[in-house]
Amino acid sequence: MSQLNKKKIFNDPIYGFITLPYDIIFDLIEHPYFQRLRRIKQLGLTHMVFPGALHTRFHHALGTMHLMTKAIDVLRSKGTKITEKEAQGVSIAILLHDIGHGPFSHALEHSLVNGVSHEEISTFFMDALNKEFKGKLDLALQIFRNEYPKKFLHQLVSSQLDMDRLDYLKRDSFYTGVSEGVISTDRIITMLNVKNDELAIEEKGIYSIEKFIIARRLMYWQVYLHKTVVSAENLLIKILKRAKELAAQHIDLFATPALSQFLYNEHNLSSFQKNPLLLDTFAELDDTDIMSAIKVWKTHSDKTLSTLCKMAINRDLYKIQLQSKKFEKPVVDAISADVIAKLKIPKNELSYFVFQDNIVNNAYNPKMDKINILLKDNSINDITEAADTFNIKALATPVKKWFLCFPKH
Amino acid sequence: MSQLNKKKIFNDPIYGFITLPYDIIFDLIEHPYFQRLRRIKQLGLTHMVFPGALHTRFHHALGTMHLMTKAIDVLRSKGTKITEKEAQGVSIAILLHDIGHGPFSHALEHSLVNGVSHEEISTFFMDALNKEFKGKLDLALQIFRNEYPKKFLHQLVSSQLDMDRLDYLKRDSFYTGVSEGVISTDRIITMLNVKNDELAIEEKGIYSIEKFIIARRLMYWQVYLHKTVVSAENLLIKILKRAKELAAQHIDLFATPALSQFLYNEHNLSSFQKNPLLLDTFAELDDTDIMSAIKVWKTHSDKTLSTLCKMAINRDLYKIQLQSKKFEKPVVDAISADVIAKLKIPKNELSYFVFQDNIVNNAYNPKMDKINILLKDNSINDITEAADTFNIKALATPVKKWFLCFPKH
Amino acid sequence: MSQLNKKKIFNDPIYGFITLPYDIIFDLIEHPYFQRLRRIKQLGLTHMVFPGALHTRFHHALGTMHLMTKAIDVLRSKGTKITEKEAQGVSIAILLHDIGHGPFSHALEHSLVNGVSHEEISTFFMDALNKEFKGKLDLALQIFRNEYPKKFLHQLVSSQLDMDRLDYLKRDSFYTGVSEGVISTDRIITMLNVKNDELAIEEKGIYSIEKFIIARRLMYWQVYLHKTVVSAENLLIKILKRAKELAAQHIDLFATPALSQFLYNEHNLSSFQKNPLLLDTFAELDDTDIMSAIKVWKTHSDKTLSTLCKMAINRDLYKIQLQSKKFEKPVVDAISADVIAKLKIPKNELSYFVFQDNIVNNAYNPKMDKINILLKDNSINDITEAADTFNIKALATPVKKWFLCFPKH
Amino acid sequence: MSQLNKKKIFNDPIYGFITLPYDIIFDLIEHPYFQRLRRIKQLGLTHMVFPGALHTRFHHALGTMHLMTKAIDVLRSKGTKITEKEAQGVSIAILLHDIGHGPFSHALEHSLVNGVSHEEISTFFMDALNKEFKGKLDLALQIFRNEYPKKFLHQLVSSQLDMDRLDYLKRDSFYTGVSEGVISTDRIITMLNVKNDELAIEEKGIYSIEKFIIARRLMYWQVYLHKTVVSAENLLIKILKRAKELAAQHIDLFATPALSQFLYNEHNLSSFQKNPLLLDTFAELDDTDIMSAIKVWKTHSDKTLSTLCKMAINRDLYKIQLQSKKFEKPVVDAISADVIAKLKIPKNELSYFVFQDNIVNNAYNPKMDKINILLKDNSINDITEAADTFNIKALATPVKKWFLCFPKH
Repeated sequence: MSQLNKKKIFNDPIYGFITLPYDIIFDLIEHPYFQRLRRIKQLGLTHMVFPGALHTRFHHALGTMHLMTKAIDVLRSKGTKITEKEAQGVSIAILLHDIGHGPFSHALEHSLVNGVSHEEISTFFMDALNKEFKGKLDLALQIFRNEYPKKFLHQLVSSQLDMDRLDYLKRDSFYTGVSEGVISTDRIITMLNVKNDELAIEEKGIYSIEKFIIARRLMYWQVYLHKTVVSAENLLIKILKRAKELAAQHIDLFATPALSQFLYNEHNLSSFQKNPLLLDTFAELDDTDIMSAIKVWKTHSDKTLSTLCKMAINRDLYKIQLQSKKFEKPVVDAISADVIAKLKIPKNELSYFVFQDNIVNNAYNPKMDKINILLKDNSINDITEAADTFNIKALATPVKKWFLCFPKH
Repeated sequence: MSQLNKKKIFNDPIYGFITLPYDIIFDLIEHPYFQRLRRIKQLGLTHMVFPGALHTRFHHALGTMHLMTKAIDVLRSKGTKITEKEAQGVSIAILLHDIGHGPFSHALEHSLVNGVSHEEISTFFMDALNKEFKGKLDLALQIFRNEYPKKFLHQLVSSQLDMDRLDYLKRDSFYTGVSEGVISTDRIITMLNVKNDELAIEEKGIYSIEKFIIARRLMYWQVYLHKTVVSAENLLIKILKRAKELAAQHIDLFATPALSQFLYNEHNLSSFQKNPLLLDTFAELDDTDIMSAIKVWKTHSDKTLSTLCKMAINRDLYKIQLQSKKFEKPVVDAISADVIAKLKIPKNELSYFVFQDNIVNNAYNPKMDKINILLKDNSINDITEAADTFNIKALATPVKKWFLCFPKH
Repeated sequence: MSQLNKKKIFNDPIYGFITLPYDIIFDLIEHPYFQRLRRIKQLGLTHMVFPGALHTRFHHALGTMHLMTKAIDVLRSKGTKITEKEAQGVSIAILLHDIGHGPFSHALEHSLVNGVSHEEISTFFMDALNKEFKGKLDLALQIFRNEYPKKFLHQLVSSQLDMDRLDYLKRDSFYTGVSEGVISTDRIITMLNVKNDELAIEEKGIYSIEKFIIARRLMYWQVYLHKTVVSAENLLIKILKRAKELAAQHIDLFATPALSQFLYNEHNLSSFQKNPLLLDTFAELDDTDIMSAIKVWKTHSDKTLSTLCKMAINRDLYKIQLQSKKFEKPVVDAISADVIAKLKIPKNELSYFVFQDNIVNNAYNPKMDKINILLKDNSINDITEAADTFNIKALATPVKKWFLCFPKH
Repeated sequence: MSQLNKKKIFNDPIYGFITLPYDIIFDLIEHPYFQRLRRIKQLGLTHMVFPGALHTRFHHALGTMHLMTKAIDVLRSKGTKITEKEAQGVSIAILLHDIGHGPFSHALEHSLVNGVSHEEISTFFMDALNKEFKGKLDLALQIFRNEYPKKFLHQLVSSQLDMDRLDYLKRDSFYTGVSEGVISTDRIITMLNVKNDELAIEEKGIYSIEKFIIARRLMYWQVYLHKTVVSAENLLIKILKRAKELAAQHIDLFATPALSQFLYNEHNLSSFQKNPLLLDTFAELDDTDIMSAIKVWKTHSDKTLSTLCKMAINRDLYKIQLQSKKFEKPVVDAISADVIAKLKIPKNELSYFVFQDNIVNNAYNPKMDKINILLKDNSINDITEAADTFNIKALATPVKKWFLCFPKH
């Protein structure tokens, strides 16, 4: 009976059916730590621009695991040895690779859990789960931390061609409706191979990789760094920053107990290490804590907080301008003076309303790790060094843009 | 400038691009009453079974308006006269047809706003908007209320072939990944015509309609009445009922101010009529108010409430059994005794844990209104009377099933 | 090297990639008997109505083999024992199940190879191949002829749920663009099981089967029995019949040598049995022999032949009327008189221009074999006897329609 | 009645429905000159590598006309004035833009109609149709020949962003199943505008154009210049060349009368000009004339012809090697010696079996014409000069490769 349940099938608009390869995968998915991902959107506030972008980290995690199953099949069919234990380990590793994400992760890391990355929290969660599952995640953890001898297993979890990227590009493209990001995960996975213990793509798959890199570049400009998305995300950062500032002054703020814990206390990496229960409080947080609070804060007596929250809820976002170099002081000063006059806010709160920063698009980063092409003569080449890819070479240089935000009215 | 903005284009994974046909459509979408629909899922808790089913009433409303634009084009091309004012009116009517939905509407109507239907609240919202927009919604309201002479316009908004059904079947099927519900809205709309002031489908579209009715039937069994979905929805109803019961006893419950208003007070139709501000409080409610409260209630001192909330958050739903007749008393009694013994709950709280009810699937309901087929000889026939559709005739009879819920452990 | 080639991957717009599971599959595909299927369209003249319907029997055969591979995987994962030899046998059997089709098969069976069915020719081809491949097709032939003990293997090749039907419904629907025929082959195959040595569908797949039967019904009315398709096919039958009649009178007709062989000689089942070389001549025939001849016959001195051929090439097809009962003599006579007067053809050639016949749609035929549903209690039920499928029951009765053809002008 | 017919709807697996905007479009499609395109595959022998690539020039022509209708709507909605007469003219121009293609056009132009391009034959057909339609194609012809004042209309028919390219990239990608070529025609057309009487793409569409250029590049390498496709096409060229050579020696060759006409006579541009009836003979030619002849030639007494034809029919294509520079004489000589020894062919027929040539991929050719980007400040920029498109700049340089063909065995 419970056996039967573990044969669960998930419906996925993208891949059709997702089946679970191992019982432990079923048990991990059932765990409250993982179930919370059902309430955390993959793309935060992006749905304010692309209304379909409501997919969760839960669904993405299942998707990566599904692709991993296919990748294992392909590699085995080409003679790469992967034991059942390794297959299970790498599947767990990819399933949990993002478990440390909180709600609106990017904004959170700039405010509530200052200086603690989601990767670090992921390992806290995995360690806790490993304890609860009595060491069954040992191998998964080794692979995740790149401490396992077969290096390519880690690359399947984390590299420029990992199952994470394959799924998120496809999934984000699907749900936003931005067809420029569509990639053929099937084709890419079919062309995977292992050479010298490293992942590689067979030569005839070179154009699928070219398309993959271009798709990544276009998704950055059209979705992840879309100017209205950047505007919305920065608004959220400012709201949480202001709330923390008020909390530091012991001012009352409506919040769930879990959110209160992070608003009224300063937590950093060592807090998590010293107090294991803090992880459970963190695990209570999801998108609904943040959004329900912001709705209530719309009528808070602090004018800066309430103004920002009204902007967020009524989708009256900052106006945002982009350019290739930093905005000059006179430009910023003129806008600042205008905002102070109109909003009648104190000068020291101006940074909540007028600010600049930059964004970077780096479609292919050979400095991080390389995408290996396995040539027909059995040698390996970086994709930028294979013939006829000047355009990929061109994309290996990061592009930086500056943005300036200020209220519309 | 603001003109330009009103030419806004929405991305839709289903239709590609959705453009706004009139400036007033843009203004209505910008209104906070409408923006709140961004935070209300179309299918409530269905995503617990189909993880992709996170689409909102906001996106569905845009979709219906998009299909309306196409239907108007098709009907005009066939000689049906529709003035610009009527086209705008019917577009507004469909855009706002569901604006009265609260979060998890079905559960809400059984608890927080007892006895007030979302249709009634929709008209409150539309009246309020009409006032704010100085009568510009007059014609839309007439069409919505079926008080406008050209009857077929109302049928485009509300009938067995309205744009609402066309969009929700397609959209729900798309996001759940249940391909049995896929319909060809393009084909159906292309075959639309008007005869004797009523909507009709041209004869050669008869098989598209057959498929549409079958798709509806299958979506009911596979999604809307899927047993785990029914189980989850009933759990939510029980949670809100228990919370209201505790609130009636003045017991403290964490809640946003808007949710508190509806928990601690009995509101009915006349409350909305007497106190126009109540609508604004209702407009503050969305999915996040409910879900953030339930998470906090997991640790409430009332055992029944906390038990139910833990079940909801950790997805430990009721076990549910289905059969064609009512469950017999001895069966229910045996389960009840078992549950009382294991959960150690007082007998008068048993109905929160063990209960039965029924569901009905009625794919085509000729008693409500008919789907007219326009034959080549220019006569009209109900689809069940057109030749060779015994199977549709078979589907005109509603199918009822009984379900019994009880805790898994 | 040649090994590598046998790992060939076919692109399929429907399934993505099709890989070949066995070397012998590669060798059979390479054989000229199989390569000829590249030049035989799956749906004959249907492309005259649905211009996308140009897919070949070659592609369909690959598709069925692809689905067979998936079905074998699913059944094995549920504990059904299928040896490697059996898997190879059933894959060969499905790959070759239609190899006996000639060009425009339906028309051909009414004219050139009178009374010899494509199934009979298929076995001739398979026997010839088995000889050439030195007995390696023995098991495939046993399965194909239903002489192999494991009966379900034959059902995968030929039954109401065989891989043939699954692929052709999906493929024909895809290429015609008639979305009413779309079925979820993935879902159906995932729900396959074996019980008492017979194929069965697990209970939760019942709605996928309902949709499959409906899709079949709708594809018959909308594509296979589409009235213009019927008109075009009958035109081709009449052309070939007339050509044979002229050939019997030793009148010269342009034709390839292979086509000449079948025009100028009467061949039947025993011709193939007596003269093994006849099969090789038959194997030379494909769509191009027929179409290139018809183009030339447009200017033939026989007026009936040239008139019919002009109609075919210029797509000036018969007008066709459909009704539920036979057309009455007076109606036919009136039209006949009109045609004779206008076309000035001798009365004994009237049947080439005015004729009636009937078509039958039988979406589900429980008399042929049944679609078994495997209930949760492990018992088996025919789908029409499982609960709540009155509409399927309704479809188990064949629907017959009569058509009358005559020239448009 | 005939009016009704002209409202014909075509099913298209890609766009769903294609409707005909003008009665004359219906009449042109009905014309035998256009109907013949039903029998000419868009991609010649490409289906030997991608079995789905069977779509015809007929379907492509309908597709381009469909996109034209959409483009006209978009441009008009942005204020560009296009009269009904111009809309009809540009729709006819695109419908007929490729009407001059013969079967396997590329091969034909190297053999049967030496030195006459399909563009030239297209204008012969259009002139003939214009005469038959009594001058109704005057405007279409002006646009086609770029003699009409509104230059952007010609650009819609022929430029780097014309409806031809948009449809063929999408269609070829769809039918081959090579997803790297998928483009969003909807997005691109939505972003079209006219500035200074030239077509331009609005700035926010810049990434859709980037993707379009990349898709073009990838389709060239993966499909149009796929090495096996190149091998098959060259085999066909050699076959037709050999047949012509034998015909010049008055040797008997099986062929339809139309094909005979072009085999046994030398035709060039002036033949068409001098003898208008030659166009009607050319109009008789389609894929079936060529393929039925090649099948018969398999047993021709000329060994070179029969060998080549067997290779084509049994898909035993030339082996082909690619490299970035010309193949050196010693390499070619060694292979040649080997082939002469094995095939025992006279030395002067060696060029039918061993030969080299080159192919060029030029994804974006700014020298031909430019893709204009309409910036937000209302100025125009070539896409390679707009910011952040180094990769497009990289693609503006053509890439040349050399290939060497020789028999496999």
